[in-house]
Amino acid sequence: MKQYLKVDPWSILEESFDPANHEISESIFSIGNGYMGQRANFEEQYSGPSLQGSYMAGVYYPDKTRVGWWKNGYPEYFAKVLNSTNWIGIGVFVDGVALDLAECQVKDFVRELNMKEGTLSRRFTAVMKDGKELAVESVRFVSIVRHEIGAIRYAVTPLNFSGELRFAPYLDGDVKNKDSNYEEKFWLEVEKSAGADLSYLTVKTKKLDFHVTSIMAFDVEQGGKRLELTPAFHEQEKFVSAEVAVTASANETVTLFKYVANVTSRDHGLGDLVKAGTEALRSAKQAGFDTLKREQAEAWAKKWEMSDIIIDGDVSAQQAIRFNIFQLNQTYSGEDDRLNIGPKGFTGEKYGGSTYWDTEAYCLPFYLSTAESDIARNLLIYRYKHLEKAKENARKLGFTKGALYPMVTMNGEECHNEWEITFEEIHRNGAIAYAIFNYVNYTGDKSYLGEYGLEVLVEISRFWEQRVNFSQAKGKYVMLGVTGPNEYENNVNNNWYTNRIAVWTMEYTLEALGEVKAQDSAHYHALVEKLGLEETETKQWQHIIDNMYYPYDEERGVFLQQDGFLDKELIAVKDLDPKHLPINQNWSWDRILRSCFIKQADVLQGLFFLGDRYDLDTKKRNFDFYEPMTVHESSLSPCVHAILACELGYQEKAYEMYLRTARLDLDNYNNDTEDGCHTTSMAGTWMAIVQGFGGLRVNDGELVLRPFIPSHWTSFSFKVMFRGSLLQVNATEDNIIVTNESDAPAAIRIYDQSYTVAAKSQVQAQRLEPSALS
Amino acid sequence: MKQYLKVDPWSILEESFDPANHEISESIFSIGNGYMGQRANFEEQYSGPSLQGSYMAGVYYPDKTRVGWWKNGYPEYFAKVLNSTNWIGIGVFVDGVALDLAECQVKDFVRELNMKEGTLSRRFTAVMKDGKELAVESVRFVSIVRHEIGAIRYAVTPLNFSGELRFAPYLDGDVKNKDSNYEEKFWLEVEKSAGADLSYLTVKTKKLDFHVTSIMAFDVEQGGKRLELTPAFHEQEKFVSAEVAVTASANETVTLFKYVANVTSRDHGLGDLVKAGTEALRSAKQAGFDTLKREQAEAWAKKWEMSDIIIDGDVSAQQAIRFNIFQLNQTYSGEDDRLNIGPKGFTGEKYGGSTYWDTEAYCLPFYLSTAESDIARNLLIYRYKHLEKAKENARKLGFTKGALYPMVTMNGEECHNEWEITFEEIHRNGAIAYAIFNYVNYTGDKSYLGEYGLEVLVEISRFWEQRVNFSQAKGKYVMLGVTGPNEYENNVNNNWYTNRIAVWTMEYTLEALGEVKAQDSAHYHALVEKLGLEETETKQWQHIIDNMYYPYDEERGVFLQQDGFLDKELIAVKDLDPKHLPINQNWSWDRILRSCFIKQADVLQGLFFLGDRYDLDTKKRNFDFYEPMTVHESSLSPCVHAILACELGYQEKAYEMYLRTARLDLDNYNNDTEDGCHTTSMAGTWMAIVQGFGGLRVNDGELVLRPFIPSHWTSFSFKVMFRGSLLQVNATEDNIIVTNESDAPAAIRIYDQSYTVAAKSQVQAQRLEPSALS
Repeated sequence: MKQYLKVDPWSILEESFDPANHEISESIFSIGNGYMGQRANFEEQYSGPSLQGSYMAGVYYPDKTRVGWWKNGYPEYFAKVLNSTNWIGIGVFVDGVALDLAECQVKDFVRELNMKEGTLSRRFTAVMKDGKELAVESVRFVSIVRHEIGAIRYAVTPLNFSGELRFAPYLDGDVKNKDSNYEEKFWLEVEKSAGADLSYLTVKTKKLDFHVTSIMAFDVEQGGKRLELTPAFHEQEKFVSAEVAVTASANETVTLFKYVANVTSRDHGLGDLVKAGTEALRSAKQAGFDTLKREQAEAWAKKWEMSDIIIDGDVSAQQAIRFNIFQLNQTYSGEDDRLNIGPKGFTGEKYGGSTYWDTEAYCLPFYLSTAESDIARNLLIYRYKHLEKAKENARKLGFTKGALYPMVTMNGEECHNEWEITFEEIHRNGAIAYAIFNYVNYTGDKSYLGEYGLEVLVEISRFWEQRVNFSQAKGKYVMLGVTGPNEYENNVNNNWYTNRIAVWTMEYTLEALGEVKAQDSAHYHALVEKLGLEETETKQWQHIIDNMYYPYDEERGVFLQQDGFLDKELIAVKDLDPKHLPINQNWSWDRILRSCFIKQADVLQGLFFLGDRYDLDTKKRNFDFYEPMTVHESSLSPCVHAILACELGYQEKAYEMYLRTARLDLDNYNNDTEDGCHTTSMAGTWMAIVQGFGGLRVNDGELVLRPFIPSHWTSFSFKVMFRGSLLQVNATEDNIIVTNESDAPAAIRIYDQSYTVAAKSQVQAQRLEPSALS
Repeated sequence: MKQYLKVDPWSILEESFDPANHEISESIFSIGNGYMGQRANFEEQYSGPSLQGSYMAGVYYPDKTRVGWWKNGYPEYFAKVLNSTNWIGIGVFVDGVALDLAECQVKDFVRELNMKEGTLSRRFTAVMKDGKELAVESVRFVSIVRHEIGAIRYAVTPLNFSGELRFAPYLDGDVKNKDSNYEEKFWLEVEKSAGADLSYLTVKTKKLDFHVTSIMAFDVEQGGKRLELTPAFHEQEKFVSAEVAVTASANETVTLFKYVANVTSRDHGLGDLVKAGTEALRSAKQAGFDTLKREQAEAWAKKWEMSDIIIDGDVSAQQAIRFNIFQLNQTYSGEDDRLNIGPKGFTGEKYGGSTYWDTEAYCLPFYLSTAESDIARNLLIYRYKHLEKAKENARKLGFTKGALYPMVTMNGEECHNEWEITFEEIHRNGAIAYAIFNYVNYTGDKSYLGEYGLEVLVEISRFWEQRVNFSQAKGKYVMLGVTGPNEYENNVNNNWYTNRIAVWTMEYTLEALGEVKAQDSAHYHALVEKLGLEETETKQWQHIIDNMYYPYDEERGVFLQQDGFLDKELIAVKDLDPKHLPINQNWSWDRILRSCFIKQADVLQGLFFLGDRYDLDTKKRNFDFYEPMTVHESSLSPCVHAILACELGYQEKAYEMYLRTARLDLDNYNNDTEDGCHTTSMAGTWMAIVQGFGGLRVNDGELVLRPFIPSHWTSFSFKVMFRGSLLQVNATEDNIIVTNESDAPAAIRIYDQSYTVAAKSQVQAQRLEPSALS
């Protein structure tokens, strides 16, 4: 844990430069626009420790490295998110000496992530080794309006000298990944050109032939006037730069504006890359930095209009939730249904592949509630489009029918190869089915089932049908050899959650079949034919539903995480010597596996997903049993515990859980933020507030709210989109006020009372004390 | 399966050249001397598919490649057996055209591994593209007398032409491993020199700085006379050659003798390598090829004197068992207690690390019975010397005391990184304890316990003590999260074999403590002090011994392989569609894991090791239950089943099991011999004959024999060393004849009758029919 950032409601602020924090800040101050992203690397040279990271969404590398004993069925590659062309770089030379913050004294340093407007800025005074002092101010952003455009304003003012300032903006494709084996580089040069008007560089990946063209142009101003300069060009392997020199007097500012377009072969034909990039760049440069920045601020204002959460009485919490919402919005914009949400967004290269079950289990609710429904719908269609590959994946594992979605994927293919995950963490299939339910339940868009959802559900149910077997010893269906959500258990039998979500999938599939049939009988029959669905199959699903085995402890009245769980030494986390924590950094894997300690919600994940099927007493018994053994070493864990704790009236526990992720990256809680931010878990923090403290549910088509205010806050409010209405929920000391900002009335429930909120008006209900809630 | 080799009692013969078989033959015809080994690559250039392999024992590379999610406690590297300097190479040019069997017609090809004398020879007629025909004969060996020396005689006779023959013997260190990622090479040049007298090349590994110096000298003879030739030298990176040209008339033979010394920094100081190699080489060259070859034949005759098995009535079986004995003897000579037995010996690079539990569980009995006891003793001392590293390994996994021996090792450190193996296949620790028992029981050398054995036993018992935990639910000690000998189950609870061998270790440790105390009380107390052994520890071991949980099926009366085994679908291998076999090539890992199919003896391994503790009925019930589900996809499996089958009177099953490994490589049964031979499993074949068909046991210090003759054989005999006596056991149609070839009497039992065999004499007992045996 490291707290060096200043608390502020709308900005992340670092007010002095400590190289030891730099890589953490590079992660936290990252900027992105769903299409590309960039760690907060310095524009000028920096010879200190730094993790360079420029990422283009959907551009990856299939790494074939093999170790250990290969398992049949493994995917051919392990996907790597690629660090791509460094387009932010600007060499800065003061009378011939490179400006490098590792080589000079840095004063009055401020780095700011302006979340309201979506910009990263920095200012500082550098004292060079020869005593020359200069003030530097930079601002940059990647545009959420023109998604191929990044812009930088970089201003230098000599303070105690007059002299030559040289600037060398560049494009550098000769970059590497930190996680590459043998220092291998992944890019080859295709073409480049340096010119007075613009310079460009096209590189391609060594495998898969992704092409990325970066095109830059720049202006230099002095005393508010654009200078006419003749650059010197420099080219080398995968590198172009244009260098200009300006003579500046003391206190005279020279400002460089660098505009870059990054375009890829995902969006343009190979022959069109330079042309497309040039057009985007020309248009941006013509608009100019200030206009681009204003566009950016306006577009971010619209995002905040939909998704802001306001917390009163706790600026630190306010900053944290906005940071989380900001990161989520800059990671995924929902405009491209080929894209998804990587666990680290655009903030680091770790967790190579892009899409995990995080998307369906944790991120979907955020996008469902804070944007128009087509954004969430695109997340679902992403999986629909991968259905054929998920079927191939199931075939590869020996299933004669059905689909198994990959654990980690870039394009629908599995790209992770650890058997206990790849082959056995199959509950992910349930999360993909659950997301369909969640989307339909939240939006009321039942047409999605007939259009896309049912096919996915049927194929997933077919998978479960074959994945269970009938145990003669138990007289029940069992599911052997799985890894549940708690990845601190591998290859277990009868993981309660997996058994439960499998049966739930089959139940919901049967329900969805009825729903589609009722909607449109002809379409239903066409779908049944397309799917080749037999009555014997649905009968078998019902048989499994009726005869599934669930491990259960009669004595305690709790569902058992898996067979044999009670053979473990049952120890509470609080009774563990803290020096053992986190266990994943201190214990060997076998010790973790045979311990009772739980990485993330597992049985409780099931009680959360299927919350309407279990009574409070059942939830309480299970929560009381499992919570004390849960180490929450996945950042995806605390939110589920927080939400259940709220439901059970454990307000202090709920707040404790909320705190575990609220400032996870801002305070570097897990001591790993330098690798990148925990982007997908940020959605969990949002859930902890909205579904936990706000108590938001959708039951029978009605939006239900059961808010309580954590004792550390005075009030809070959040906005949600629900079935076309933008609602602001404001929990104050006395009242719950729901304002309908839309043009149509909205039906809601607060605690146990139903209301209709007329367009552009509000309703208000007395706030209940937490003790009255559960 | 591929049968292309000619059956012969003393040789392996390949009588025509088919490039499709070449890589298989390269494995099978490998030669070695315990210090170095060499696949049967051709001396002359060969541009067809070939796996080059020259291996120096104990020289390896720590490969750091990482994929997947790193687990805490993993070793830093994965060891690779290194392909090292190609020292056999001889460029051969006929009027300037390279001889290359992939580029000419090959007639009258014979490749022969002469197992009696330890030589590899080859003869053929090559028809060059221009029609020139030449006869070639080569013989080579690595000396088991001078272990750093290899020698080659290579004779060429033009048949239908006169012309220039050029020979370019070389040393080539610019070699690679087939299993290297990214084509990485592992060797760097240190120095080289080409000279008329001798040429040498020193290379070192990129990591760990192993140095290997290869020094060559050669002579050329024509018409029986040594030629005085002036070579042309050629040097390039990691390569030296000396080239000579000879004019030969039709039918005039030119013979090149190449002598090489390979010396390593394992045995010599870095500064002494060239000197030491030069001395070894000079001495060998002075002795000359014929002398070296005669020495080799004499030394092999001595080995056969101790270890031969004679089978009458089945030449194919005779060839197979000799091949197995030959491979074992050329893999491990017992002279260097830093060395051990790699699963593929010197025949391939697969299974990178060197030492597995194969050594203790399968190989030890062979060396115990076929050599002086110090050879087997050195295998045990190898582990004693690694005790400190095994203790470190246990610490690394969080154990506060005790030792966990590595699954795979080169120098005592673990060098395998798959968690389910590295961290969980801990029964290996039991095999290391069992080997001590086996050695002491066989040799009667109880002093080994006080000298070395007890320390190892105590540290292993300490490991088991901490590895179990007390299950409140069961009221017993349990062992969670292990992988048993059947690696087709991972991370299971209460593997019966592991629980059993753990308890057995503690029992034997307590017994050994008593034994050492009785032998020498002062030494006992010194050892207890050295070990810091507390009475609370031995009491705890006893408590675990008395309260261990063993999964058991009351209904069937069988030990259960692990908890939950009966939840599986129990299917016999014979009921599986044969196209699914072997399942490890056809099924994904998860499917294998949740199936009932057993890779290798697991419960049955325990009933074999601890055979004197279980009655025949128990063995029968378990054999009848597990054998039908066993796929024997480890070559280490069938021998245990064969031995138990013999004991149970299942002679046909025993013979079937014996056949599974007897000609495993000769017939390429598993279709993978091109990767190398299954060296360690060859000891299993030996066991199947001696302990299975021969029924050899050592009970209460007495050698017990219960032979039966497989119906396909007319008689068989084998030799064993037992407590200083060399005994030949001959099972004929009518009698069992035991001949004592030593100078001291030996006490033995045949079936249930005890005998004393006087020195240099024999006893004979009537052979019992198999039906009378069980």
